[in-house]
Amino acid sequence: MNAKDILIKAVQCDKDGRILEAQDLYQDGIQILMEVVGDERDSNKKKVYLERIKEYIDRAEQIKLRVQRHMESGEIVANIPIDENSTGHSYKSLFGKYMNADVKEILIDEPYIAERYQFQNFVVLLELAAKQCKNLKYVRLVTKPDPKNTAEQNSILNLIKTDLQGRNITLSIKYETTLHDRKIILSNGYIIKIGRGLHFFKATNPRYSLGLCDYDFRNCLQTDVDICRTKTFS
Amino acid sequence: MNAKDILIKAVQCDKDGRILEAQDLYQDGIQILMEVVGDERDSNKKKVYLERIKEYIDRAEQIKLRVQRHMESGEIVANIPIDENSTGHSYKSLFGKYMNADVKEILIDEPYIAERYQFQNFVVLLELAAKQCKNLKYVRLVTKPDPKNTAEQNSILNLIKTDLQGRNITLSIKYETTLHDRKIILSNGYIIKIGRGLHFFKATNPRYSLGLCDYDFRNCLQTDVDICRTKTFS
Repeated sequence: MNAKDILIKAVQCDKDGRILEAQDLYQDGIQILMEVVGDERDSNKKKVYLERIKEYIDRAEQIKLRVQRHMESGEIVANIPIDENSTGHSYKSLFGKYMNADVKEILIDEPYIAERYQFQNFVVLLELAAKQCKNLKYVRLVTKPDPKNTAEQNSILNLIKTDLQGRNITLSIKYETTLHDRKIILSNGYIIKIGRGLHFFKATNPRYSLGLCDYDFRNCLQTDVDICRTKTFS
Repeated sequence: MNAKDILIKAVQCDKDGRILEAQDLYQDGIQILMEVVGDERDSNKKKVYLERIKEYIDRAEQIKLRVQRHMESGEIVANIPIDENSTGHSYKSLFGKYMNADVKEILIDEPYIAERYQFQNFVVLLELAAKQCKNLKYVRLVTKPDPKNTAEQNSILNLIKTDLQGRNITLSIKYETTLHDRKIILSNGYIIKIGRGLHFFKATNPRYSLGLCDYDFRNCLQTDVDICRTKTFS
């Protein structure tokens, strides 16, 4: 897509309440416009481009602030302590009821998506989201790059992205080396904070035991889950 | 347990409608009594033992006939054709509604439980059964011995048996070299027949895609599912 198409789509997403996707598109559009403006010699046209760029930077910045405010203004609706070795705490059991047709976008901050079991946990979360959030269009994963094997991590995440694309869900993958906090933000106004992030399940041992696929049977590590409600993004 | 305790438990199970478990217990009890009678020199006592043995053999035989009749007298309540590469056909979606608190026993005839994905499918079925059949006490798996690696097959199945034992469900494993037909019989009167048995799901490809744990996202192989209803076992 060229800058124009990208920015038209950005404005559409923005109006449609899909602000995370709009934010990405504004940023992509701005980057292309910046290149165009660099090559432009006509000073009047240059001025128009620069005004546009400023306008889109402002919009992207507004979204950033809106998401930040969104996270600060929540009230806690549930606090679920998970005891060591307790069971019955699949993602679905914990917060499945908040994942509904009102969710168009999901933001997942999870520092560790690099090991096999971590990819599996991420996919299990996506299965839940894709099944229950009938209008889900966009998921942004923010994670740490794996210092041991960045290429493999990126390759597996891109395969997951392709799989979701086939289901009309855009997965945007952002790497942040300093990420620490874990949270899942649903665009319907719910925020899920788990002390350990996605990875609070013990492996089945032996492998072929109940819990292999249904995480309600998995023994858990001790952690706490807070669920907050704020206004919706848009 | 000695023969007396085994046979007391057999009679209790029989009365309680847990006839598959009773059948196993009768057979175990009979075998121990046979050994006892061989060592017994008092001809009167020997006679009493033999009468008992005959009585228990008759009861075990009655159960066998009851289960056979059970399978012959059904009416089809659902026929579900599964198209090649279609999705939405997890065990839960197909027949989860029949797996309820009325199910005390399940008989699974599935010739192939020997490969990794086959063990996984079996565990996924057991997860569904353990979650939804709140009064499940007994599962009998009838399968073919794996000619390539009988020891490993038996070892993995026994680990699953131990896992279920910890959840108060007895898993009985029977090997039959000539087994062909596939079916799942629930003691509440429902019989599920799937042309391909448990293994009609394609693997996720790439591995980390939706469908890894939630089989509703898996592409299927073409097969047919018939669900019949008969009277309950007992």
